[in-house]
Amino acid sequence: MKRYFDDDLKKLNIDILKMAALVEVAIFRSIEALKNRDKELAEYVIKNDQEIDEMELTIEENAIDLLALRQPLARDLRFITTGMKINAELERIADLAVNIAQRVLEIVDKPILKPLIDIPKLNDIARKMVKDVIDAFVNSDEKLAKEVILSDSEADRLRNLIQKELINDYMSKDVSTVTRGVPLLLIARQLERICDHATNIAEDVIYMVQAKVVKHHPEMLDKT
Amino acid sequence: MKRYFDDDLKKLNIDILKMAALVEVAIFRSIEALKNRDKELAEYVIKNDQEIDEMELTIEENAIDLLALRQPLARDLRFITTGMKINAELERIADLAVNIAQRVLEIVDKPILKPLIDIPKLNDIARKMVKDVIDAFVNSDEKLAKEVILSDSEADRLRNLIQKELINDYMSKDVSTVTRGVPLLLIARQLERICDHATNIAEDVIYMVQAKVVKHHPEMLDKT
Repeated sequence: MKRYFDDDLKKLNIDILKMAALVEVAIFRSIEALKNRDKELAEYVIKNDQEIDEMELTIEENAIDLLALRQPLARDLRFITTGMKINAELERIADLAVNIAQRVLEIVDKPILKPLIDIPKLNDIARKMVKDVIDAFVNSDEKLAKEVILSDSEADRLRNLIQKELINDYMSKDVSTVTRGVPLLLIARQLERICDHATNIAEDVIYMVQAKVVKHHPEMLDKT
Repeated sequence: MKRYFDDDLKKLNIDILKMAALVEVAIFRSIEALKNRDKELAEYVIKNDQEIDEMELTIEENAIDLLALRQPLARDLRFITTGMKINAELERIADLAVNIAQRVLEIVDKPILKPLIDIPKLNDIARKMVKDVIDAFVNSDEKLAKEVILSDSEADRLRNLIQKELINDYMSKDVSTVTRGVPLLLIARQLERICDHATNIAEDVIYMVQAKVVKHHPEMLDKT
């Protein structure tokens, strides 16, 4: 079967979309497991990570084959190298969902510390950022990628709020809350790190589209 | 000036060695700042990260140019794509050193919680892993890369020990320790994450040398 280069690039696109869908579901499930105190679901997220790991390897192999066999230039080369970076970022995000699921297992049998409000909010932001940034990649949508970067500050704000509340209102007042507070604090950090990964991807997408370096230069966001 | 491909590869090697040296120093300084309660040094680590960020971009640009202009195959292609991944991992490690320095600033003015023993130990392991894995890359030394992967379990063990001690012996006994305990707990996690990044690099190096996937398949380590 003869394959054309455009088909190869489309396949890379589709594979990354599939990978992103798996990763998004993993984040969603890890926080559902937290909200519903669902041990089985948390265990499922941990077990299911292997599928995402396998997929990362396959995508990377295919991308390196593309580089070797097709010797792409300019835009295509940049598209493939960006795809490789996004692939690696997505795998890291999935690892963070696993990490959240592990923290859920630590507290699932303990009494509820507090009603969860801000963590699910932060989760919604994280999942939206991941979804949007992958859309931005497949559609070369610079505007959407910039929106993703700007929403990261709201994620930071929420995470600080969660951390402050847990430390000041619970853990610093009542020692019996510490073993339940620390896992929640870490879950908030993992969600914020997911947002950071989405931001990394957004910077790569903007660079791909503009061939301009936004990474490490946030001031450039304002100038366009 | 005519440049040969071998020279380009050597330059990539040297650039990554330089980048690794900067990153190693950043880790070292962040923990020195913690040990000596040195606010200025912590601030220096944070400020100095820009140099590492710039270097990452330069190395990535040069690597993509190599791919475009030289159209390398097989071993050389794999060396360059591995170099690109290592470059990105090193930049992340530097960000973790910044993160540690920020935690140091949070506690530097507060009374000492406890004598630091295991955190400096974990720091020694982290720095050795980073140093060794970069040596493994530049020398294509598979054996050394495997040793790096095996030492990660000691890092995990130490981090668990630190976390348990902080939670059980301090934060769960005395609420006044929480605001000092949490930053130490996070510093231990950042150090462990540095070890995880070194492990990622080691897997990439082994793959580069063997063209065999160790990543996500730790059982392969025993079979060789």
